[in-house]
Amino acid sequence: MRIGIVAPSCRLEEAVAGQLPALARAAYGADAPEFVIHPQCFLTEGHFAGPDAARADAFVELANDPAIDAIWFARGGYGACRVVDLALPRLASAAGDKAYLGYSDAGFMLAGLYAAGIGRVAHGPMPSDMKRAGGEAAVLRGLAWLMGQGAAEDGPKKAAFNLTVLSQLLGTALQPDLTDHVLMIEEVGEYMYRIDRSLFHLTSNPQIRKISGLMLGRCSDVPENDPDFVLNEEEVTRHWCAHSGIAYLGRADIGHDAENQVVPFG
Amino acid sequence: MRIGIVAPSCRLEEAVAGQLPALARAAYGADAPEFVIHPQCFLTEGHFAGPDAARADAFVELANDPAIDAIWFARGGYGACRVVDLALPRLASAAGDKAYLGYSDAGFMLAGLYAAGIGRVAHGPMPSDMKRAGGEAAVLRGLAWLMGQGAAEDGPKKAAFNLTVLSQLLGTALQPDLTDHVLMIEEVGEYMYRIDRSLFHLTSNPQIRKISGLMLGRCSDVPENDPDFVLNEEEVTRHWCAHSGIAYLGRADIGHDAENQVVPFG
Repeated sequence: MRIGIVAPSCRLEEAVAGQLPALARAAYGADAPEFVIHPQCFLTEGHFAGPDAARADAFVELANDPAIDAIWFARGGYGACRVVDLALPRLASAAGDKAYLGYSDAGFMLAGLYAAGIGRVAHGPMPSDMKRAGGEAAVLRGLAWLMGQGAAEDGPKKAAFNLTVLSQLLGTALQPDLTDHVLMIEEVGEYMYRIDRSLFHLTSNPQIRKISGLMLGRCSDVPENDPDFVLNEEEVTRHWCAHSGIAYLGRADIGHDAENQVVPFG
Repeated sequence: MRIGIVAPSCRLEEAVAGQLPALARAAYGADAPEFVIHPQCFLTEGHFAGPDAARADAFVELANDPAIDAIWFARGGYGACRVVDLALPRLASAAGDKAYLGYSDAGFMLAGLYAAGIGRVAHGPMPSDMKRAGGEAAVLRGLAWLMGQGAAEDGPKKAAFNLTVLSQLLGTALQPDLTDHVLMIEEVGEYMYRIDRSLFHLTSNPQIRKISGLMLGRCSDVPENDPDFVLNEEEVTRHWCAHSGIAYLGRADIGHDAENQVVPFG
């Protein structure tokens, strides 16, 4: 098993990359995967892990390599939306045989891949989650899905996104067809008025209204609203579901934290 | 001339409302308009100027009143997206004879009205701009357009929006057809990475790509990006215009400030 790691958004810390092989060996022994950590992960250009072209090239190189079984996005931050258009049209058939795992800003990649029907895609922990308290368990959770070759799950079709990331790709070619999917959303670091506004946006999209229902993950590090927004994240989600006729299906076990679960798409 | 004032977003300060008639009398003497300031403007419910239903009802009441010539949105903030769906389907023919003026969060109202072909719509100063340094000139600039019955301008078709507000209505029924329009955008209080992300979103929308060109208004109060984003607002706008094939037409004289110009739509 060879897992390629690229960073379409922000730079990966060397310490995180260094811990990954030992963690995998401790868990899998001789069956531990080989990690192919592309040097692009450690580039810096302003906000990003290198120039747009370098991030796109690294992703295309590993995705098109038939000797690599899966692509793990190193971390989030911001920048994948600058890469996805440059990369997806260059993917070859070997890219379709892979599993792809990430969340947060990597959702732009997941959305584009899923919209184009390329590979097996999941929302879930990334190498950078190692830095969280309890983060090793999160990283191992993600790794387990990759070691299982990106298996699908039984039950209804599913997809999961950071709310802002999904909002920011609605009405573009990256918006996947989520008809009859259970859609899970999570958020971090956004004011409640922004969560409310993104939910307006999401639930007002005619294609999104075809989902079978919405589940709300954790909304963490919500800055204090001035004045008090009064409504919490579940109340605003219920509001917009009721307004739009989307079924509210309760809470989802995803978020920007160590408990973040793997959600295979489809 | 009777101008109706409603607050679909946040609450209007009484002091601002109190200054408006004197300002208009000083400018127009006996020809000064009568301001019909709906009591809803002074309601409070959490973040908003009263409950969603009260904000929608106030707008519908004044928009449908044939004795009122124009609707001036009192101020921005957040909340118009909760009102527009409740209000627009209830508008009668009298609403089509009016001018509508506002900007920032009121852009949700402008978008919905323009998308539905109701009335004469413009981006421009609101009563709450009175609080800015030099704000009386801004308020009088908006008032002058309203006093002129919401006249159109010669030249190419135009529209203007806050970037985040326009981003947050893409792919919904509120998105107006801006084919062959010069589209002006402005922003306030957003990190450069968010401006970049919203520009990705805007310029990746197939309908938006039909505009005749994009003009960049002022981006004010941009918080410091960590790390330095390197690129400024004009550089990221040029980037996304080049990437999307949209013509970049230079700077627009709009923004969250006292210089904010009136931009009649169409």
